[in-house]
Amino acid sequence: MTASKRSPNQVAPALKSDAGVLTTRDAPSPSSRRKFLRAGTVLVGSGTVAMTIKPASAQGTAGNAATASPPAVPEWMKLPGAPVGGKVYGVPSKFESQVIRNVPKNQAQYISSASRSPLGDLDGIITPNGLFYERHHGGVPDIDPAVHRLMIHGMVQKPLIFSVSELRRLPSVSQIHFLECSGNPVYTKPYGKTASDLVGLVSCGEWTGVSLKLLLQEAGLESGAKWVLAEGADAAAMTRSIPIEKCLDDALIVYSQNGERLRPEQGYPLRLLVPGFEGNMNVKWLRRLKVMAEPAYSREETSKYTDLLPSGKAREFTFYMEAKSIITSPSGGQHIDGAGFVEIRGIAWSGHGRIRRVDVSVDGGRNWSEAVLQEPVLTRALTRFRHPWRWNGQPTVIMSRATDETGYVQPTFEQLLAERGVNSFYHNNAIQPWSVAATGEVSNANS
Amino acid sequence: MTASKRSPNQVAPALKSDAGVLTTRDAPSPSSRRKFLRAGTVLVGSGTVAMTIKPASAQGTAGNAATASPPAVPEWMKLPGAPVGGKVYGVPSKFESQVIRNVPKNQAQYISSASRSPLGDLDGIITPNGLFYERHHGGVPDIDPAVHRLMIHGMVQKPLIFSVSELRRLPSVSQIHFLECSGNPVYTKPYGKTASDLVGLVSCGEWTGVSLKLLLQEAGLESGAKWVLAEGADAAAMTRSIPIEKCLDDALIVYSQNGERLRPEQGYPLRLLVPGFEGNMNVKWLRRLKVMAEPAYSREETSKYTDLLPSGKAREFTFYMEAKSIITSPSGGQHIDGAGFVEIRGIAWSGHGRIRRVDVSVDGGRNWSEAVLQEPVLTRALTRFRHPWRWNGQPTVIMSRATDETGYVQPTFEQLLAERGVNSFYHNNAIQPWSVAATGEVSNANS
Repeated sequence: MTASKRSPNQVAPALKSDAGVLTTRDAPSPSSRRKFLRAGTVLVGSGTVAMTIKPASAQGTAGNAATASPPAVPEWMKLPGAPVGGKVYGVPSKFESQVIRNVPKNQAQYISSASRSPLGDLDGIITPNGLFYERHHGGVPDIDPAVHRLMIHGMVQKPLIFSVSELRRLPSVSQIHFLECSGNPVYTKPYGKTASDLVGLVSCGEWTGVSLKLLLQEAGLESGAKWVLAEGADAAAMTRSIPIEKCLDDALIVYSQNGERLRPEQGYPLRLLVPGFEGNMNVKWLRRLKVMAEPAYSREETSKYTDLLPSGKAREFTFYMEAKSIITSPSGGQHIDGAGFVEIRGIAWSGHGRIRRVDVSVDGGRNWSEAVLQEPVLTRALTRFRHPWRWNGQPTVIMSRATDETGYVQPTFEQLLAERGVNSFYHNNAIQPWSVAATGEVSNANS
Repeated sequence: MTASKRSPNQVAPALKSDAGVLTTRDAPSPSSRRKFLRAGTVLVGSGTVAMTIKPASAQGTAGNAATASPPAVPEWMKLPGAPVGGKVYGVPSKFESQVIRNVPKNQAQYISSASRSPLGDLDGIITPNGLFYERHHGGVPDIDPAVHRLMIHGMVQKPLIFSVSELRRLPSVSQIHFLECSGNPVYTKPYGKTASDLVGLVSCGEWTGVSLKLLLQEAGLESGAKWVLAEGADAAAMTRSIPIEKCLDDALIVYSQNGERLRPEQGYPLRLLVPGFEGNMNVKWLRRLKVMAEPAYSREETSKYTDLLPSGKAREFTFYMEAKSIITSPSGGQHIDGAGFVEIRGIAWSGHGRIRRVDVSVDGGRNWSEAVLQEPVLTRALTRFRHPWRWNGQPTVIMSRATDETGYVQPTFEQLLAERGVNSFYHNNAIQPWSVAATGEVSNANS
């Protein structure tokens, strides 16, 4: 070791008794250390996987690495770090400041607008609340939960009004479910450059709230009650009609998301959750549920959120988000740092229930292999899939294809076109191909 | 309706075509509205549950409620809300600003310190990253992930150094697991006032990283390798010895938590995760793994994190966090707003695997009833339990008792004392009783 590389014992005298701290005796000599840093490629064999890893010294940060890699002591071990962050709500590292929600540049204003989860930066199935996608029709209201009320009226025997604290006393349910905007992406290729640009209007969280069935049973449905109109307390008075069957199945009145209270942009203090149904039906800032015999044919189920078919008829009340998947790593805008082993990772989901399987192609769709699904596979939740790949450094196209428990298979865009024609806008669940260049650059194969 | 209560159609002219928005025809007349607001108690019947809900008009906020409850239009529907938050990392509502981590007031400084999750405010099983408990021994280092390296050396055939990006190419694993400090709470009753004061040094997240077994297989263990010394890159050079069996089982080198990269206070950019083992062994800011024949007997496994038994011997290497549970709602510092139905909720967990059952007593431990466990029940993860209770308004004591899949039953504090004596400090997993006063105030029954 050189004189400037002091051991932790020297820089933290109070810790001298720590038997486990690296000592001079433990440290490889400069010559032996150089030896394994320069050892060339390291081969990892794991069952069917054969992968090549470049050693740290071969990377762009080699200069830093030579200084800071173990056994050298990095700067941040030489002085005490920051104190506990208990007095504030915690935030990510400054080195992750680029990982924020993604606002499309072509949006003229930000009131009736959206922002997307940075899917290419995310792992697992839970989306942290600070990165959960947003879609608002009249901006985000700033609601005082002590004043907010939920009214249940219409074709009920006993109209009810609940405060938030009253709802919190009732029997609660927690479920992990995805939420997805029905226009994710819209129907016009190539949609964008990154996984977030394309399908970043999907996220997944653990929701806690009250069964809507319980509240409707308490109110007492009148004969002929077939629909429930949900209205939000935002400036758009966002309004959708929900079939009574869904309201009596798994619909929730939600107050918490990933353990804490709903975020303002997710409907604080109350939202409707209709698992698997298109995002806008999960009415945020929920203030009113009116039980009705017919749907309301509100703006958001007539002028919007319908699709014109080649026959001239409109598809309306297209509740379910069909099975979909996308590779998030490697994905558009990312770079593979050299040939060798790369784990292909992505997410799959279906509004109809569980994902049964995901297949991956690394040759433009000619051959497909079944990916591994992360357990537990939950109904109407994001499902993480993983597939080992040894990239040979040649240009290719990679893609994924989901199948859900009903047997439905995610279509190609050409199959969607054949069925729905060119005037559709919502419910594009087409397979998404990514091009991998010889340089390692990954881009949208549709562009 | 009075003139001052305009319908949403009037205040949002652009939305006049919305069929679903409340119209004058829909709105109950002032007389009918007063009727159901004054309808007195509302009885909810749900199987074995009988509950009484006070109507919103009977609450302290009745003045506001009369103005803002549906069908009256609240202020926040009259103007557009805030734009999408895509340019910044999202934060909670200003009305939740009191929900932060809890720093004990008796801590003289905040470098070797802790902050607790606000358990009484949380739902479900996922702890959001901004509220995840902290425990640091030398403060939080500010680590550049491009410079950070993990070295594997000692009794291996091939020493290895990995950058973070190299680790991210390898096969990944995501698991939902709890983390808990071994001193949660320490061994001296009454510990504090709230659930957070008492056992707020436990949280649960979805962790993503690389199997440590995979890395050790690649390095090649030498004969006689029995322990792995893990060292953090913080100023304390936090150092613990991990048995090789755990390293070859479910241990992970973690880079993500709840979807996004680890927070700085959780070990950014890399930490060790040894599911079910005491928190400090899950070494944060992980920089070095040295394979050894014997444990290192570091400070944190000799001077600290051991317990003196009545025999004069010390319990050391007390890895596993035993089965524990606590009622988080209603819990110390909370208030039950009148007699009637209250759902009792809490969390249970065990370092040995899955929670098999949780029992709840609402009469000071004389009678016990089995609570409902939130599915899926995951191994070494928080498990949410729920139990319906009709509080009769009389003073009582409530408590919960966990049993894990090994059959181990959470003890009373008296049972712990009999086994370990009075000089223990860590691994207090005693049953926690809460007193409910006739006023509805909930407090620590041990105080």
